[in-house]
Amino acid sequence: MTDQRDGREGRRRRPARPGGERIAGGIKQVPWRNLVNPYKPVEVLRPEQVEKIHDSSLRVLEDIGMDFLLDEARDILAKAGAKVEPGSKRVRFDRGLVLEAIAKAPSSFRLHARNPQHSLDFGANSINFATVASAPYCSDLDRGRRSGNFPDYCNLVRLAQSFNVIQLIGGYPVEPVDLPPDTRHLDCYHANITLSDRIWHPYSLSRQRIWDAVEMLAIARGVTKEQLKTEPGLFTVVNTSSPLRVDQPMLEGLIEMARAGQSIAVTPFTLSGAMSPVTIAGALTQQNAEALAVIAFAQIVQPGTPVMYGGFTSNVDMKSGAPAFGTPEYARAAFAGGQLARRYKIPYRSSNANACNVPDAQAAYESMMSLWSAVMGHANLVLHAAGWMEGGLVASFEKVIIDVELLQMMAETLQPLVVDDETCAIEAMREVGPGGHFFGAAHTLDRYETAFYQPILSDWRNFESWQEAGSQTALQRANALYKKILAEYQPPPLDPAIDEALKAYIAKRKEAAAAA
Amino acid sequence: MTDQRDGREGRRRRPARPGGERIAGGIKQVPWRNLVNPYKPVEVLRPEQVEKIHDSSLRVLEDIGMDFLLDEARDILAKAGAKVEPGSKRVRFDRGLVLEAIAKAPSSFRLHARNPQHSLDFGANSINFATVASAPYCSDLDRGRRSGNFPDYCNLVRLAQSFNVIQLIGGYPVEPVDLPPDTRHLDCYHANITLSDRIWHPYSLSRQRIWDAVEMLAIARGVTKEQLKTEPGLFTVVNTSSPLRVDQPMLEGLIEMARAGQSIAVTPFTLSGAMSPVTIAGALTQQNAEALAVIAFAQIVQPGTPVMYGGFTSNVDMKSGAPAFGTPEYARAAFAGGQLARRYKIPYRSSNANACNVPDAQAAYESMMSLWSAVMGHANLVLHAAGWMEGGLVASFEKVIIDVELLQMMAETLQPLVVDDETCAIEAMREVGPGGHFFGAAHTLDRYETAFYQPILSDWRNFESWQEAGSQTALQRANALYKKILAEYQPPPLDPAIDEALKAYIAKRKEAAAAA
Repeated sequence: MTDQRDGREGRRRRPARPGGERIAGGIKQVPWRNLVNPYKPVEVLRPEQVEKIHDSSLRVLEDIGMDFLLDEARDILAKAGAKVEPGSKRVRFDRGLVLEAIAKAPSSFRLHARNPQHSLDFGANSINFATVASAPYCSDLDRGRRSGNFPDYCNLVRLAQSFNVIQLIGGYPVEPVDLPPDTRHLDCYHANITLSDRIWHPYSLSRQRIWDAVEMLAIARGVTKEQLKTEPGLFTVVNTSSPLRVDQPMLEGLIEMARAGQSIAVTPFTLSGAMSPVTIAGALTQQNAEALAVIAFAQIVQPGTPVMYGGFTSNVDMKSGAPAFGTPEYARAAFAGGQLARRYKIPYRSSNANACNVPDAQAAYESMMSLWSAVMGHANLVLHAAGWMEGGLVASFEKVIIDVELLQMMAETLQPLVVDDETCAIEAMREVGPGGHFFGAAHTLDRYETAFYQPILSDWRNFESWQEAGSQTALQRANALYKKILAEYQPPPLDPAIDEALKAYIAKRKEAAAAA
Repeated sequence: MTDQRDGREGRRRRPARPGGERIAGGIKQVPWRNLVNPYKPVEVLRPEQVEKIHDSSLRVLEDIGMDFLLDEARDILAKAGAKVEPGSKRVRFDRGLVLEAIAKAPSSFRLHARNPQHSLDFGANSINFATVASAPYCSDLDRGRRSGNFPDYCNLVRLAQSFNVIQLIGGYPVEPVDLPPDTRHLDCYHANITLSDRIWHPYSLSRQRIWDAVEMLAIARGVTKEQLKTEPGLFTVVNTSSPLRVDQPMLEGLIEMARAGQSIAVTPFTLSGAMSPVTIAGALTQQNAEALAVIAFAQIVQPGTPVMYGGFTSNVDMKSGAPAFGTPEYARAAFAGGQLARRYKIPYRSSNANACNVPDAQAAYESMMSLWSAVMGHANLVLHAAGWMEGGLVASFEKVIIDVELLQMMAETLQPLVVDDETCAIEAMREVGPGGHFFGAAHTLDRYETAFYQPILSDWRNFESWQEAGSQTALQRANALYKKILAEYQPPPLDPAIDEALKAYIAKRKEAAAAA
């Protein structure tokens, strides 16, 4: 955790910060930090409302139950005491079973990156930002909207690696559909490991994908799979197939992640009005039921599995059925999700989502609604924090840059203020006096270079200067900036022997796949 | 105050809301509400830090003092016990004098609109949104950036009147420089009164402007000036000429506003690094010193004068000296300003500010930084809430529409959630069952029309539909929308006799001005 007093202010000619301020594309950026949220969480539910949702969700699991679409999962649950109907996928849970199981989840955990300086904490007041994940398309101003592909995938990972404020690779930033589906994950893992030194995410969509991720992570970090169990480095997202169902590949992946000691963000996909009730309280009740059931299952598979409680409740446009994000319903559900996660002492995952087709004012204000509600709701992980567009269909290169500005501003807004004799500056006011100005004051000259957040994208020039320079919008500036940063990208150091071992593993696995 | 349970949810075929949902330009909008903020304020300062700023600011007033550039003001202060140096503008204040005076300020008050349904409360958990004010330029996509003028002024007032969520006219939305400066205010007041039925704002920039505002308000409401003292209807902003100075016309206006029983938002113009120290704690110390001194002065002129504590602390770009808004420094200062205002039990004023030259992603994210920090910092008045651009230089017609969307989303985010058996929707989940969907469920059909916030600007269509419809950005859609709303604008009802009386007053005053 970072020093709580790492504010920008109150320091005279202070030394460089730990880690320094990385320069990417000639751009000054905020330092790498293990961010801590100093604010009290914003609460939309009164305590008795939290209890009402808690109780209602347990009644859902007792009375209606959930469908678990994997035989092994139902067997495990039946052995643990859940009610499994013969010949049916349905599982019903006594509340005692659920509560006993989820109590085994750790209230906080650390994920270890290949570069130990980029390890991250989840739980308590930590907050971490991950890239967009799982977009089938990507886009930029130059080439427009196109299907996901491996070169764009790699460039999105390179962008993430270039910014200190993007702390994790949140999945496939874009789906590389130009690679064969059965071995695609191997190339993606290799890109994650070699182009970045951050924590990354395998999809919980079969056993083999998880086994490969664990093997390659062990090679990358030079540790055994046994060590990985106590020093986990992977996270995955398990989405329920709402309402009240978990699919087979998700459950297979979950079981293998839990057995390998890796972390799982359980995230019900509760779009209010479509896959969950049209009331936010109902959507939250269903979200809570699904999250608790799957978290309980993970704890039954492997007690102590590091898990997160994922909140993704939003609403659809009731005229068209189109999903909406960053809405007032979304914001309040994000606050409430944090309250529920804290009710169970489980780290909380939220998102930076929007439903916009172009990185314009709407994309920015919907993202800000999502981001502020995630931060004020005390999310420990903000997934899709950089680059998400179109309700998740598109990873936008320009939106990555816009979001980095948003994330950097939030990261700075989380820095406490220093209030002491020096910063209260009575002597500076005496020096300047009524009617003067502070530009030349000693107090100012001592601090001006590091006093304030310096944006990477925002243009604060006056109208005439801005017009003379071509009247560029934020979108146009973001386009130039992402290309500049990619042009100057340098991969993080990696022992060539490790890369050889990774390549050998991939070659072996591809051979096996071709033979199968 | 509105019913705390006025959530959208949990109502079966509920009756129309009080006041209904006004249709402007065929657009469904949120109902008029006296908004209440249900969240606990976000606090960036620890209690001892609040006290440190409090104490430091009182030391500034004791040791350095402030320049009051009006003889009458210094005489009033000297009589009240302040230390006034002969032959100097400087006034020094003992802390006892300041604290005793500000204790006379009411902790909350109501401003009465011409239409009583549009009266507003300031204090406690109320929150109110006002138009942009004081922009010298205005702009739209059709005619670009141009000097302020009376036709545009009137159209901005018409837009404000068309939206329930814009609750006050915050000043001149744009300065009508085509009107003679000495009588301009008369035409503006007339436009405010006839084109809208909302609370409005005369500038505190001489005695006569205030006298005219009070006379015209009395005519408009059909009440005496004596009644106006107990049922105030005007608010003004008194900006200090930071650092530590108050100009003569501001003080003249303040004195007349206080004597007329009208309300004053005292707002130091403390841009950190320029007109205040480069540290946020220093800027807040100076803000607090200036605010307390001027609020104390208002209470000495007229004990019980309704005042607001205005926070406007932001920073400048230290490379260019350009003002910046919606920055991380701005956000934390907005939180801190609310803490200081509440320390003195005085209603709090903040803003929706940005420094952008075009209503693009930057304008939206900077505005969202300002707006979220104002709302989470518990501002009772958010000035410049609709239309502000370029650090206040421009009133943008499209930005009004963008901001209305932001304000409506915030207004909905402030609505509490209803959590009961009906909204928790266990029966709906039983009906739909695992793997189904809720579109056709009875629970959904009963509520879908009013379940969710419906945006006025956001486009949630899928990419293909959006592209077929012309790939319009939020800016282009806002342009079409503002023109549609103006085309269908209807003025609020006004007794023709009142308008005659207003016109007669204006004619008399213009004659007097011509003769002078």
